[in-house]
Amino acid sequence: MEPVVYTRPVYYYETDRMDCVHHSNYVRWFEESRVHLMDVLGFPFVQLEAAGLVSPVLEVQAQYKTMAHFGETVLVETAIESYTGTRIVFTYTVRDRDTGTLRCQGHTAHCFLNDHGRPVSLKKALPAYHTAILAAMGPEN
Amino acid sequence: MEPVVYTRPVYYYETDRMDCVHHSNYVRWFEESRVHLMDVLGFPFVQLEAAGLVSPVLEVQAQYKTMAHFGETVLVETAIESYTGTRIVFTYTVRDRDTGTLRCQGHTAHCFLNDHGRPVSLKKALPAYHTAILAAMGPEN
Amino acid sequence: MEPVVYTRPVYYYETDRMDCVHHSNYVRWFEESRVHLMDVLGFPFVQLEAAGLVSPVLEVQAQYKTMAHFGETVLVETAIESYTGTRIVFTYTVRDRDTGTLRCQGHTAHCFLNDHGRPVSLKKALPAYHTAILAAMGPEN
Amino acid sequence: MEPVVYTRPVYYYETDRMDCVHHSNYVRWFEESRVHLMDVLGFPFVQLEAAGLVSPVLEVQAQYKTMAHFGETVLVETAIESYTGTRIVFTYTVRDRDTGTLRCQGHTAHCFLNDHGRPVSLKKALPAYHTAILAAMGPEN
Repeated sequence: MEPVVYTRPVYYYETDRMDCVHHSNYVRWFEESRVHLMDVLGFPFVQLEAAGLVSPVLEVQAQYKTMAHFGETVLVETAIESYTGTRIVFTYTVRDRDTGTLRCQGHTAHCFLNDHGRPVSLKKALPAYHTAILAAMGPEN
Repeated sequence: MEPVVYTRPVYYYETDRMDCVHHSNYVRWFEESRVHLMDVLGFPFVQLEAAGLVSPVLEVQAQYKTMAHFGETVLVETAIESYTGTRIVFTYTVRDRDTGTLRCQGHTAHCFLNDHGRPVSLKKALPAYHTAILAAMGPEN
Repeated sequence: MEPVVYTRPVYYYETDRMDCVHHSNYVRWFEESRVHLMDVLGFPFVQLEAAGLVSPVLEVQAQYKTMAHFGETVLVETAIESYTGTRIVFTYTVRDRDTGTLRCQGHTAHCFLNDHGRPVSLKKALPAYHTAILAAMGPEN
Repeated sequence: MEPVVYTRPVYYYETDRMDCVHHSNYVRWFEESRVHLMDVLGFPFVQLEAAGLVSPVLEVQAQYKTMAHFGETVLVETAIESYTGTRIVFTYTVRDRDTGTLRCQGHTAHCFLNDHGRPVSLKKALPAYHTAILAAMGPEN
């Protein structure tokens, strides 16, 4: 699928004494970016939770290439790498907006739980939402 | 009442590019410190919430005197300034542990809400907890 | 002066177990909002720091009226309340974008330090910047 | 090597509306834990930076097994998995203190840069520090 781009200025409080964005904040940018992707593509995260489901993170991985600084803006390109109904994987590429320099790459994996904390498949639990995800991923899905 | 002291090392991610602790983190230290005070004095915050109540912050105020740095440890002295059953005010004094230098002073004010979001008095809603707070504040209360 | 409006969606990680935005995050929104105001009005914060100056926070105060939630967007109206060359005070009013409901009000006060950590007046240290601030505040300044 | 254990209560502001610790905070716990390990084993992180070096994170990976909650305390077991003089890898195992339940596992990888931003080997740049790391890892190193 075509990645969705999320634009984000660096906030002052996200820097650390090394004068760059602290690495833990990229994990937060990943979250903002996937929430944005889900809004844009028609399956908002807030809708999933309103239906009584939650989507905990199973795994996060990030590789840091260059440092981002206060005064800069980043572009986070997010795409759905895979989706099975019970598990979804997002990929993220963070670049400096002005130079295109690669800052960070990573992915996150998630499952879906109902309000009893049991793993569910969105195909059964939220069929319209499931369909929207498949549609967003493109014709081959 | 005698203040309760909370000891806290500065975490690296709490610094910013000015090479000091970002001011927003002191508000978080205030919270840690009052949760610690409540644990130590016999009315743990987690107990309040387990009883179905919440205690939102009504106000925070902080004055910043000197900067704290990575590698340092702070002492946060917390006391209950006032408590009426419906409103409680905590004061905080943050000092560098090694030099005693004053870093920050402030206060927070809180109310109590039941699980319908209605303001309550702890005197009625959690009488044993209310008694513990008064006891902690000393004989004049 | 006419307040500058900063638009900001609530991020998931800014919520807490009370299912609302944690109070400490409003202090961070204040910072984002004043950095935005300074960019918009012609005296960017990054420019101040590039000139070797820093602007530490002397004081923050916030009053919390109603809770903000994930799925909502806030508007932060920021204005310069006062500016003397050595001290500047910003005010902030945070409202829910969709309903206009008041979430939080507050202010921050700041001074200016040179690269030796000495307090300075922007009137001497960065005259063009000083002029831009006065211009932004309006004809009565 | 024998892991070093870091004890850490969950802070209220670290929870999110899913009533558990937000996944991004584990990455911050990893940092606190390795800083603690380095202090305990004789090569404090603040000493590295005082010598003009920095140690940026190259990679972070975390797998989330069960949720941690406010009111709980976690134990973070940290060990050095590998160290070459130019690259160091730490592993982390986060458990609930009271039940021993596994919360999260992960690792981080780091390099070392001098004050010109150039990669260095600690063997040359800080030999005493390098020796302390090897000693901590045990006789087979």
